[in-house]
Amino acid sequence: MPVAAVILAAGLGTRMRSALPKAMHPVAGRPMINHLVATCEQVFDRIVVVVGPGMPALEKAVAPHATVVQAERLGTGHAARMAAPLLRDFDGDVAVLYADNPLITLPTIRRLVARRAGAGEGSEAAARRGAPGMALLAMRPADPGRYGRVVQDEAGDVARIVEWADASEAERAIGLCNAGVVCAPAQDLFRWLDAVGNDNAKGEYYLTDIVGLAVADGRRVVAEEAEEAELAGANSRAELALLEAGMQARLRAAAMAGGATLVAPETVFLSWDTRLGQDVTIGPNVVFGPGVAVEDEVEIRAFSHLEGCTVRSGAIIGPFARLRPGTEVGRGAHVGNFVELKAATLAEGAKANHLTYLGDVTVGAGANIGAGTITCNYDGLHKHRTEIGAGAFIGSDTALVAPVRVGDRALVAAGSVITEDVPDDALAVARGRQATKPGRGFKGKKKDAS
Amino acid sequence: MPVAAVILAAGLGTRMRSALPKAMHPVAGRPMINHLVATCEQVFDRIVVVVGPGMPALEKAVAPHATVVQAERLGTGHAARMAAPLLRDFDGDVAVLYADNPLITLPTIRRLVARRAGAGEGSEAAARRGAPGMALLAMRPADPGRYGRVVQDEAGDVARIVEWADASEAERAIGLCNAGVVCAPAQDLFRWLDAVGNDNAKGEYYLTDIVGLAVADGRRVVAEEAEEAELAGANSRAELALLEAGMQARLRAAAMAGGATLVAPETVFLSWDTRLGQDVTIGPNVVFGPGVAVEDEVEIRAFSHLEGCTVRSGAIIGPFARLRPGTEVGRGAHVGNFVELKAATLAEGAKANHLTYLGDVTVGAGANIGAGTITCNYDGLHKHRTEIGAGAFIGSDTALVAPVRVGDRALVAAGSVITEDVPDDALAVARGRQATKPGRGFKGKKKDAS
Amino acid sequence: MPVAAVILAAGLGTRMRSALPKAMHPVAGRPMINHLVATCEQVFDRIVVVVGPGMPALEKAVAPHATVVQAERLGTGHAARMAAPLLRDFDGDVAVLYADNPLITLPTIRRLVARRAGAGEGSEAAARRGAPGMALLAMRPADPGRYGRVVQDEAGDVARIVEWADASEAERAIGLCNAGVVCAPAQDLFRWLDAVGNDNAKGEYYLTDIVGLAVADGRRVVAEEAEEAELAGANSRAELALLEAGMQARLRAAAMAGGATLVAPETVFLSWDTRLGQDVTIGPNVVFGPGVAVEDEVEIRAFSHLEGCTVRSGAIIGPFARLRPGTEVGRGAHVGNFVELKAATLAEGAKANHLTYLGDVTVGAGANIGAGTITCNYDGLHKHRTEIGAGAFIGSDTALVAPVRVGDRALVAAGSVITEDVPDDALAVARGRQATKPGRGFKGKKKDAS
Repeated sequence: MPVAAVILAAGLGTRMRSALPKAMHPVAGRPMINHLVATCEQVFDRIVVVVGPGMPALEKAVAPHATVVQAERLGTGHAARMAAPLLRDFDGDVAVLYADNPLITLPTIRRLVARRAGAGEGSEAAARRGAPGMALLAMRPADPGRYGRVVQDEAGDVARIVEWADASEAERAIGLCNAGVVCAPAQDLFRWLDAVGNDNAKGEYYLTDIVGLAVADGRRVVAEEAEEAELAGANSRAELALLEAGMQARLRAAAMAGGATLVAPETVFLSWDTRLGQDVTIGPNVVFGPGVAVEDEVEIRAFSHLEGCTVRSGAIIGPFARLRPGTEVGRGAHVGNFVELKAATLAEGAKANHLTYLGDVTVGAGANIGAGTITCNYDGLHKHRTEIGAGAFIGSDTALVAPVRVGDRALVAAGSVITEDVPDDALAVARGRQATKPGRGFKGKKKDAS
Repeated sequence: MPVAAVILAAGLGTRMRSALPKAMHPVAGRPMINHLVATCEQVFDRIVVVVGPGMPALEKAVAPHATVVQAERLGTGHAARMAAPLLRDFDGDVAVLYADNPLITLPTIRRLVARRAGAGEGSEAAARRGAPGMALLAMRPADPGRYGRVVQDEAGDVARIVEWADASEAERAIGLCNAGVVCAPAQDLFRWLDAVGNDNAKGEYYLTDIVGLAVADGRRVVAEEAEEAELAGANSRAELALLEAGMQARLRAAAMAGGATLVAPETVFLSWDTRLGQDVTIGPNVVFGPGVAVEDEVEIRAFSHLEGCTVRSGAIIGPFARLRPGTEVGRGAHVGNFVELKAATLAEGAKANHLTYLGDVTVGAGANIGAGTITCNYDGLHKHRTEIGAGAFIGSDTALVAPVRVGDRALVAAGSVITEDVPDDALAVARGRQATKPGRGFKGKKKDAS
Repeated sequence: MPVAAVILAAGLGTRMRSALPKAMHPVAGRPMINHLVATCEQVFDRIVVVVGPGMPALEKAVAPHATVVQAERLGTGHAARMAAPLLRDFDGDVAVLYADNPLITLPTIRRLVARRAGAGEGSEAAARRGAPGMALLAMRPADPGRYGRVVQDEAGDVARIVEWADASEAERAIGLCNAGVVCAPAQDLFRWLDAVGNDNAKGEYYLTDIVGLAVADGRRVVAEEAEEAELAGANSRAELALLEAGMQARLRAAAMAGGATLVAPETVFLSWDTRLGQDVTIGPNVVFGPGVAVEDEVEIRAFSHLEGCTVRSGAIIGPFARLRPGTEVGRGAHVGNFVELKAATLAEGAKANHLTYLGDVTVGAGANIGAGTITCNYDGLHKHRTEIGAGAFIGSDTALVAPVRVGDRALVAAGSVITEDVPDDALAVARGRQATKPGRGFKGKKKDAS
């Protein structure tokens, strides 16, 4: 049976105090909506995202999936109903999910969908009553607080959802709470959504109310349990930080299970797509932006920052190294402290160990880039490339004014400003002559505070 | 009724193993005494700080408030009595607090003072007994350990404080513990303090003993409860670290509630006075010293360190940026990796993105500072200023020898050492000529280990 | 009585997914085996380490202690038996320990050994039964999970160890768990080890089985309890990270107890041998490699990385400083941001505060190293030294091409490339002449994206 997802992403998250739609706040290097969409893409045949008015960045982020705009904020039931024009006649099940649940896992969504389709019944008695007409996700939070409680009948089916405010003491003692995620046949779902009213304190249409409508329709409603951590949402920046922490914990655990040592995992920040090889060692305080692949036996030392780059086997990075997009560090190459690489390719065994900026550069195998080397890749109008040959030696404190090429095995004297190409095997010197004046030194002068 | 505070700050904190008085150990960027004094200034008409002998830095830190010296360390009761010459005739209430309670909040102090004045009685029966003659702060610690227990009578008033060593099993089972902070009319307080004896194992005068004296005087004593976390003290460096952690948690929560994203709040270290605008994003591992104001929509990337500076809207800082006092980064300006700014003003849209030191500098709007630029602001005797005009372009690896001015829209060639002013719209080049010698390169030579 | 230790270190730690033997994974800056060996050296007269085949690095790490190779992996009992040729005739007790227990403390090992020798009996009745024939370490984990349970008789002696799989419900309710560490007279130990069979699911010889053999022999077996945290092992990278965290917590607590302030202890990473003086202040995010000694009243600011260096009293390091092996920072000297020191000696009061690389350098007292100074210590073939005299002033953005000497009180002009020695009190300038060309600036040109 085909399945579709409606993702509610229209929220502004007023308590976030942000100009950014809530769904666009990033978690582990990408907007939280993209986590949920990526998970949904593995389950659902169609995905419709309900956005708010004036959220072009969000629409773009979820492309090519369809979006519908909820022009007025009249509640979750109203938001889900926005998808009706696209899905009312969908011949299958539709699940409704929330953009701020980026931690929900693929197995959980699969279990929800399968459960609606009749799998995983808890008891024979329940199964005899026929396939459920709706499945919802429920959880047992450590602190159930003010969540709506899931009241079950003797067969274990959902009798109703009772909001905390309306719950009796006995109902409040129920540990099973409604997570708000539902799955039902499209035509039923939208019929119930049409029937939801707004006769409540806030005058809103609540998605949750369809549970009662389904039961009133004589349909079975079943609750599929999931971990509380997966269903964490974010209504404030503090909760957003908890989502980030939850995602990081998951990414770190996966990295370690894959054979990487994280000396202090709690200080390593991974991106959703970070790939780490076996016997990679990551020191404390390392930050990965998106798009990083690290091969086997690489050592990334403390205080390194990597983004959009590839690091080949056996390379050593850091401490205090910054690798920016477009960078590739070759096998066994070294990138040391206070070194920035941008769109730089270092071939096997090349070294750039100290206070260096390499931008728009190709460095040949085994070349040595001295301390304080600066590629002058931007003339204020255009970017230009620098090429450094295999086995070349760039003396310390050298400026390479691009476009320029230093040949294989060429030698550039320390302190030079290289403006012309240096042929293979040549030596280049470009610096001022030294003049020394006796007795003009520092003796007896009184210094300011430094 | 006027109220005064006596703050006990004479402690050396022997277990801190420090030459610094305990009250001077910093928390969130200022001495812990200053946190308490700042809170007290919002409540009390007068503040008297009891210091130890030879603590001029502490006396200076609490100025203009009065200080009295406790010459001998004879206990908390003795310390509080030192304030008698200044406050015995004070026509109002006096509270006694501890310098190492920097986390105590304004509402708590206000509740204590109001409680002494007769507010917030727990029961009618208690209220009928008349306004209390003393109020004290109590707490219910997760682990009551060896705290003195607050024994209450049937009306809920404090019957006595029993020290752990003297407590019966039944008394040790009491969860309410004495926090040591008291408030009473000045004349009563000092009369009781005069009456406290030192007939105990250590031969010290304990402030706590005034509770028994007040009760013996027929005065009601009431306990105002506060959170344990607010009353945390620091007798060791480990406890000092816990105070810091408690303060940081509070500052981070406030920053997030105000609309800043802290990707990993536990890695962001704020100062007591850090101001962050809305939609500010702070990456992992950012440290704020005192005196930082960050406007809206600024991005501060990982591994940045800011102190005494202002960052205007839309600017991007870091990663690996260091902003030192006297710095102002203009709207939409960029400060990148391994860049240090000291007393530097960057106008709107200016950029200094790579390995640069700008000290005592004014940079005009839209100017671009190339990688490896160094302002030579100190000649060993004096500091001098550098001025860079709007729209100027400083080529990479350039030294600007101050005092010097680079004009608007001027262009400095990469690798230059600029010692003379460059007029508006001019080009300046100041570097050695390149000499290239074929065959003098690196071929066939054997390298040392690098 | 002489005592010997057998340390089982042959494990590969398959779940680590590593080419490195498990015992060689580092904790707090050295292989975990070395932690245990160092502790054992304070108790045992002889140490024998059982290694796997092809582990030369491990054999070297534990030298000069004897190693024996367990050629086939047939279980812990089999591994321990490998030591028989060296210890069967040892006239004393032999303890068997595990290489992946680096957190086990000296007092615990001493208690185990003393307990076997008859000390610390829990009851008179037990003592009357004579000295124990074996002592083992047991623990009461927060979650006993699937650990083997220690079943005790009415006298408190160990009746047997029951594996979780074989345990009854009543036995599973026992909180006391087997930690696997044993101590017994050499001849008994190896006789029991010879008798252990492999008639079990995995076909392995289990060390634990000697407990039953000892009891069957009519010998008393006693359990010495230790903290769970000390007996943590590491079968995965995640568990390795927990060992690291446990060791770091211990090192941090010791540093604070010794009088160092760690502003955020959880962000400071110490090495097993880090020495910190009194009133040292360590900011957030500081990493210590092995071999660092810091004297009193030093301030190490955030984002610093130190390894193999000595920092004398009153010095200020960082933020963003990197001190590499062979470095000594003198009394009151300053090393600032983006500064790397390698084999560099800074005398009293010297300063290198900004974007500098000092490698193979001696800096005299009070010398000032300007921003952007680079020592060119490597010519691609050899390393050379730089000497900077007392009171010298190195202007900013200077390259010092080694071997070179700048004399006492000498002055080097900013932007110079120094290739020749500068005498005491002399001034040296070595830079290009400035040429300024009016109207050749930036006016009206259109820039690329930067």
